[in-house]
Amino acid sequence: MGASTMYRTHTCGELRTSHTGNTVTLAGWVQTVRKFGSITFVDLRDRYGITQLLFGEELNKVLDENPLGREFVLQATGTVNERSSKNANIPTGDIEILVSEFKVLNKSAVPPFTIQDDTDGGDDIRMKYRFLDLRRNAVKKNLELRYAVNRSARNYLHENNFMDIETPFLIKSTPEGARDFVVPSRMNPGQFYALPQSPQTFKQLLMVSGYDRYYQIVKCFRDEDLRADRQPEFTQIDCEMCFVEQEDILNMFEGLIKRIFKDVKGIDYTEKVERTTWEEAMWQYGNDKPDIRFGMKLCNLKFPLHTFPNKSESLQNSPLGDGGAFAVFNDAETVVAIAVPGCSEYTRKQTDELTEWVKRPQIGMKGLVFIKCLPGSPETGNAVTYKSSADKFFTEDKLKAIADAAGAKAGDLVLILAGAEERTRKAISELRLEMGKRLGLRKEDEFKLLWVLDFPLFEFALEDQDGGGAGRWVARHHPFTSPKPAHIETMINNSPKVEDLNKYLEHPYAGIKANAYDMALNGNEIGGGSIRIYQRELQEKMFAALGMNAEEQQHKFGFLLGAFEYGAPPHGGIAFGFDRLCSILGGSESIRDFIAFPKNNSGRDVMLDAPSEIAEKQFNELQIKLDLK
Amino acid sequence: MGASTMYRTHTCGELRTSHTGNTVTLAGWVQTVRKFGSITFVDLRDRYGITQLLFGEELNKVLDENPLGREFVLQATGTVNERSSKNANIPTGDIEILVSEFKVLNKSAVPPFTIQDDTDGGDDIRMKYRFLDLRRNAVKKNLELRYAVNRSARNYLHENNFMDIETPFLIKSTPEGARDFVVPSRMNPGQFYALPQSPQTFKQLLMVSGYDRYYQIVKCFRDEDLRADRQPEFTQIDCEMCFVEQEDILNMFEGLIKRIFKDVKGIDYTEKVERTTWEEAMWQYGNDKPDIRFGMKLCNLKFPLHTFPNKSESLQNSPLGDGGAFAVFNDAETVVAIAVPGCSEYTRKQTDELTEWVKRPQIGMKGLVFIKCLPGSPETGNAVTYKSSADKFFTEDKLKAIADAAGAKAGDLVLILAGAEERTRKAISELRLEMGKRLGLRKEDEFKLLWVLDFPLFEFALEDQDGGGAGRWVARHHPFTSPKPAHIETMINNSPKVEDLNKYLEHPYAGIKANAYDMALNGNEIGGGSIRIYQRELQEKMFAALGMNAEEQQHKFGFLLGAFEYGAPPHGGIAFGFDRLCSILGGSESIRDFIAFPKNNSGRDVMLDAPSEIAEKQFNELQIKLDLK
Repeated sequence: MGASTMYRTHTCGELRTSHTGNTVTLAGWVQTVRKFGSITFVDLRDRYGITQLLFGEELNKVLDENPLGREFVLQATGTVNERSSKNANIPTGDIEILVSEFKVLNKSAVPPFTIQDDTDGGDDIRMKYRFLDLRRNAVKKNLELRYAVNRSARNYLHENNFMDIETPFLIKSTPEGARDFVVPSRMNPGQFYALPQSPQTFKQLLMVSGYDRYYQIVKCFRDEDLRADRQPEFTQIDCEMCFVEQEDILNMFEGLIKRIFKDVKGIDYTEKVERTTWEEAMWQYGNDKPDIRFGMKLCNLKFPLHTFPNKSESLQNSPLGDGGAFAVFNDAETVVAIAVPGCSEYTRKQTDELTEWVKRPQIGMKGLVFIKCLPGSPETGNAVTYKSSADKFFTEDKLKAIADAAGAKAGDLVLILAGAEERTRKAISELRLEMGKRLGLRKEDEFKLLWVLDFPLFEFALEDQDGGGAGRWVARHHPFTSPKPAHIETMINNSPKVEDLNKYLEHPYAGIKANAYDMALNGNEIGGGSIRIYQRELQEKMFAALGMNAEEQQHKFGFLLGAFEYGAPPHGGIAFGFDRLCSILGGSESIRDFIAFPKNNSGRDVMLDAPSEIAEKQFNELQIKLDLK
Repeated sequence: MGASTMYRTHTCGELRTSHTGNTVTLAGWVQTVRKFGSITFVDLRDRYGITQLLFGEELNKVLDENPLGREFVLQATGTVNERSSKNANIPTGDIEILVSEFKVLNKSAVPPFTIQDDTDGGDDIRMKYRFLDLRRNAVKKNLELRYAVNRSARNYLHENNFMDIETPFLIKSTPEGARDFVVPSRMNPGQFYALPQSPQTFKQLLMVSGYDRYYQIVKCFRDEDLRADRQPEFTQIDCEMCFVEQEDILNMFEGLIKRIFKDVKGIDYTEKVERTTWEEAMWQYGNDKPDIRFGMKLCNLKFPLHTFPNKSESLQNSPLGDGGAFAVFNDAETVVAIAVPGCSEYTRKQTDELTEWVKRPQIGMKGLVFIKCLPGSPETGNAVTYKSSADKFFTEDKLKAIADAAGAKAGDLVLILAGAEERTRKAISELRLEMGKRLGLRKEDEFKLLWVLDFPLFEFALEDQDGGGAGRWVARHHPFTSPKPAHIETMINNSPKVEDLNKYLEHPYAGIKANAYDMALNGNEIGGGSIRIYQRELQEKMFAALGMNAEEQQHKFGFLLGAFEYGAPPHGGIAFGFDRLCSILGGSESIRDFIAFPKNNSGRDVMLDAPSEIAEKQFNELQIKLDLK
């Protein structure tokens, strides 16, 4: 390991039987102390492993007078012995050190929780004493994985001619979508820097400057209300290329993720990454980052025509037909089903529990309709019988037709939700993921990538989201994303104005697709990007579509519009959420487990006790004061 | 190069005669257009090089109608031809492309300055159009060098078991020395984060957590009044190790810099890096980061005894003796000389100019005394004759004694400064560097490293520097630096209180040396670090020495003091100024040339026009307001 220093000759993870007889010095932390009569065993731990120390009779007396405690820092010199009873669980388990000399380098108070995988410490106390939590093997493994991903990404990008170029952190506040963190400037009183939400415009400028292939693993900042798994500062693998089309980017970056799989997890992901369009993803899975480790695709029985105009012919084949007498279906905008394999024998208790599950506020459905596809018995001669919570509204033939449409086989359970399109589609998607999880179909050691393509360029904000006003187009990705070449004319030749807010979906802008792509992994978005606009006129049109007048455009993005006048090349890029990517590769739901010093849900670092009040002198120098409501 | 994409088959730096006959597609920027009768040559440029395009008669007509301009973005397809008249200056100079098809991907306005090494653009315009400035080869080479240093450092550190661990950017404001940039917290009204001046306490916590070897190439922030070569945000190569002593760190990190020399400059720096103590450096060179590419060491003729108490015996040998009748020397605290080789023939004009040079306010001397050591002529029989501006006060024997003491030989010019110790020592140091430069002794392609060791632990602030009050000890490095083991007792057993401010140098604290080290390169400090305090008691004593009471200690650094209770290992580290290191390796005086998007001396990004005013809504959300004086 090359850890030889003045303090130690070896690390605690490195000695083997081949070292038997050598005199060595180790340094580390006391993991356990086990006294057996007149001898004592100590497990000494460092980053690299654990080595057993044996204190014989004489030193044992010394220990009796000055006992070692957990987490003491110890330096010990002795001879490497082959153990009589070996421990096959650890790489150093064949040897122990017969200690001849030792020194306590530092003592330790009793830690507030145990430094073990299954610690007895709760979340709050572990965050307060994060420096102790970081000693636990589980956390260390996460940070090691994070570094391995970092290293692997850099190697791949380097080999592909990408250059790491640092972009500034003290930039200009141009709030678009998320809120900026701002930094008062003492040297320019009354003015503020902003911390970057991403290096977006800088990486585009670097393409204009001809740097060809750029990357950075870089901190970004968003002052958003924090959900469970958001951090005010987070890390991106940020990349940009010039003289590329979408296909070039997809190939380059599925290569990156495959390389990371190989380097970090030892997985050969040789198959081509599957692709789908945003529309297909919404149609088949109900969300734009589907988990494709399992099927259970949606069966769309009814939906508003404007949402999926190209799918309307499929309605003609819907087994619902005119819906019969079932008001729940008749009154609903959307009816959608999934076939859950092997669950036809669910008890009343189980189906009731599922009904409660979809009625929780997070899901927000009014109820759940099910059809059990019961395997037939020889007596009846029937292959399958159908039992439904809506038996009284549907004939068994009708139930069979629905089950067939959903792709259900004997033994399956069909679950059906009905309601308003957006909520219902979201709900069935959640239900699908939940059933996948319950059935063990979302395997932790299986990784399935998916490119989702052809996102809409715009979303329509019916309500005011960010102070920009209601009833206007907002950029789905960001304002620098290029429309599909075939849709550029649509954008240029139409005014963004929406006359009737209720019919915004009929506005030509609603149909404009973007040259944008997301990469999904196991149901999570791990990266996203786009081909960028590189013509001044089109960029101005885009800003105008988002409601920015010429003056505002110039104030906020004059530098970029200016740059586009001096030979901007076609370019595009992508950014991966580094924290999220690491957490998925590490098999965890929480990105906090993969950040050395994370903040809690109020954006606080409880270890530092930050943020905190600042001194009067600082206010004076910055020429600001508090204005607490 | 693997640059094959939809837009191009090769880069502009890659084609050779071996490609002759191939059909290729290139994309890039028009560097020059040269029309010769019915054909046109275009030099096409990208990050990788320049390739000559030849437009034959037919396409030439197209060009006549739609002329190409400088910096147009062009895609061209054609056949690789071996040139008849080759250009040996560029790697692609043996070939040209006979263009069959081309497309203007984007036009360019005429750039406000030429995109060439010797551009006609001034500093201000180049900063405003930084995206164009970045196209110039000179700037590109700097950023490529920066990336090469980054890559080399990471590889070395990785091979030596260091882990890149990201530390937070939104931390707690604990101003010590430099001013923090602060960030108002919307979610915690009235409270502020600070941006890190360095990850110092975090990397120490990581050592307490057992991560053993940490590194990061990381942005740091200091809100200081900017001198010519300071940036409010700058980058450090930040490292920390545990279970090490100073010797381990010196060996590890001279290895790092040697590796960078090898990887980036192709230089085998095989010799051991020289070492000196802070006291010797001040004694011999007058500053703590001496340029040792040349000699011209100081000859200390007179100095206050308290400054160099161990050097007092050398005064007994001073040729000045009792000083004679020369008031300038008699009244001075310090008299110090250098022998400038080969300058004995300086004219009156030249010595006058030097005298003016030392009298400039930046140097601040009242005058300059010189002794010319003129080679003797055969007639006189004298080997050397001595002529001085102080002839009337000194006999030639005395002049000879002074010149001999300064190590001057025949043909040399001895320059002597006299005045108050601190100013005079600084002045002679500047004079030495200036003479070294004028004589061509500071060679751009020569690199000499030097470790400077044994810095004082404290400095005494006679005046208030940072609002902490006057007449108190401040940490020379930072408050986490360990005293030399032999001096720990001195620190623990003495009160920091200084009774008589005029005699602070007699206080025991003045003599305490730190386990701290700087690395100098060619007269610049490129890195510095220390062995850290790792015992709570000693850290508390240190904070107290700096005037921090127990409550303040707990408020600002409670987390660190707490961490030291739970088994903190001995540890130490170093941080290199990445911007500075790159600029020296690149042979430039200015770090701005090595930063993609630097700020000017008022901390402004003139391209972005940042900092700038923010919206009323932002003030409301942050619950702050302006308080302009």
